[in-house]
Amino acid sequence: MARLLLLGMSALDAIYRVPAIPTTPMKVLATSFSECGGGMAANASVAVARLGGEAHYWGRLGDDALGDRILADLAREGVDVGAVRRVRDCVSPSAAILIADDGERLLCTYNDPRLGADPSWLPLARVAGFDAVMVDVRWPEGAAAVLDAARDAGKLAVFDGDVGPVDALLDLARRATHVAFSELGLARATGTADPGEGLRRMAPLTPAWIGVTLGADGFLWRDGDRERRVAAPPVKAVDTLGAGDVWHGAFTLALAEGMDIDAAARFANAAAALKCTRFGGRSGAPRRDEVVAALAAG
Amino acid sequence: MARLLLLGMSALDAIYRVPAIPTTPMKVLATSFSECGGGMAANASVAVARLGGEAHYWGRLGDDALGDRILADLAREGVDVGAVRRVRDCVSPSAAILIADDGERLLCTYNDPRLGADPSWLPLARVAGFDAVMVDVRWPEGAAAVLDAARDAGKLAVFDGDVGPVDALLDLARRATHVAFSELGLARATGTADPGEGLRRMAPLTPAWIGVTLGADGFLWRDGDRERRVAAPPVKAVDTLGAGDVWHGAFTLALAEGMDIDAAARFANAAAALKCTRFGGRSGAPRRDEVVAALAAG
Repeated sequence: MARLLLLGMSALDAIYRVPAIPTTPMKVLATSFSECGGGMAANASVAVARLGGEAHYWGRLGDDALGDRILADLAREGVDVGAVRRVRDCVSPSAAILIADDGERLLCTYNDPRLGADPSWLPLARVAGFDAVMVDVRWPEGAAAVLDAARDAGKLAVFDGDVGPVDALLDLARRATHVAFSELGLARATGTADPGEGLRRMAPLTPAWIGVTLGADGFLWRDGDRERRVAAPPVKAVDTLGAGDVWHGAFTLALAEGMDIDAAARFANAAAALKCTRFGGRSGAPRRDEVVAALAAG
Repeated sequence: MARLLLLGMSALDAIYRVPAIPTTPMKVLATSFSECGGGMAANASVAVARLGGEAHYWGRLGDDALGDRILADLAREGVDVGAVRRVRDCVSPSAAILIADDGERLLCTYNDPRLGADPSWLPLARVAGFDAVMVDVRWPEGAAAVLDAARDAGKLAVFDGDVGPVDALLDLARRATHVAFSELGLARATGTADPGEGLRRMAPLTPAWIGVTLGADGFLWRDGDRERRVAAPPVKAVDTLGAGDVWHGAFTLALAEGMDIDAAARFANAAAALKCTRFGGRSGAPRRDEVVAALAAG
């Protein structure tokens, strides 16, 4: 079983399904509600665990009841949360998410600045014991420390390049062995909305292998000087919340298991597509047998 | 100590402070977050308990962890929740609330239709043991049963006429001894946005005493054929969420303690005004000594 370390954001998501996203201050009646864990790295951890990997999540939470619920949800999914740091008198991250019937989303998130940035408490000596690490952009100091330790140990060091500060995106991209951007993250980092052009601009800025997830349009990556695309399986998407995080967890796991880029991207595309067919954020992340069946059927 | 029964809505509110209410699907970063119990009758119950009354809350919740948290919060406030019904396989009510710096609000609420409407389980024989009851419009069948039982026993039967279905507003107004509408609730019930005209139109429709809360403009009521107004103390409002519920709890308690309408309205105006000076929904409801001090200072 591949051992993965995932560092970054965890939160609690309150997800409301609504007829339409409101455009004025008003009261909206939701047609359904679900509460589940969220946050990029935490969602990827759950995806890894469901797909048969050993997932260890590192990050920071408040010492509040919200943090207890976030950790309990991760532990229930089989994610190891023993190294999570609880910060005293701090509010754990949460998000209210409205999802309209047309798929549009309104997110409201809170991150307590008192969570702090200091990565010095991280047990970096343990990083070499993992087959791969994956980090998000929400805690750049911690992500940099873990990427460096993994790369130095000759391990896979994957960066999920989603929307964040440009300097953090560029810095973490340089420290990783593999960067899979989101479409908006790549646009933010390179100043162009064209994913192919974005990858061309990014290539000289990092020694890492680079690619970009394009949702229903699949995955685009640079194979030397060539551009290659791995199509996504067609699905009827009802909720894309967390799909990118599932993709990154699945992709990192597949690389850690020894798949090549093409196979890993197909595996991740299938996992993310299955997630999109189910309402409720990461609670819709698929199990291994479901992804295997989808790949066999496709 | 006055014994009050409050029946209606209870929920969990997730409250996000934001720079402005979004007008398109997007991601908003909140500047603060707090989670606390909500719901009209539940908020009024907490206000009553903090103001020195004995508050009993009756209502329905799901048998989920959300419901556990809602009840624990009420119990911590000293509200008796022993008669609350937990409905199997049902999701407890919740709300995500965005409050902008200018006071504008976006609410997204979920109420599981499986909570049901049947009031037959209510221990109505116990109603005569209370000095007053107060009900909201969120569960009309339960509210009607409790108002009838209280009126039949010669007790105060107060209805909080906030926005709801017109037929429910008119029906419950007829069953109460006292109706205090919200401005929007009265407008909905009578078809006019003018509160004075609304009260004139409502008067022949119910045998109850009637009035309407006007926020910063105080409280307007019908004294026979005359219109009387009780001014609200001027305050710098930072969060009006739950202020109307605090008003109704304080008003019902004051009536139960024997105050006349004028004194009860002044007491309730002062309690609601104090609540408005504090961020965080009902967690800002004042204690008795604070209201007494505010009335003495005013």
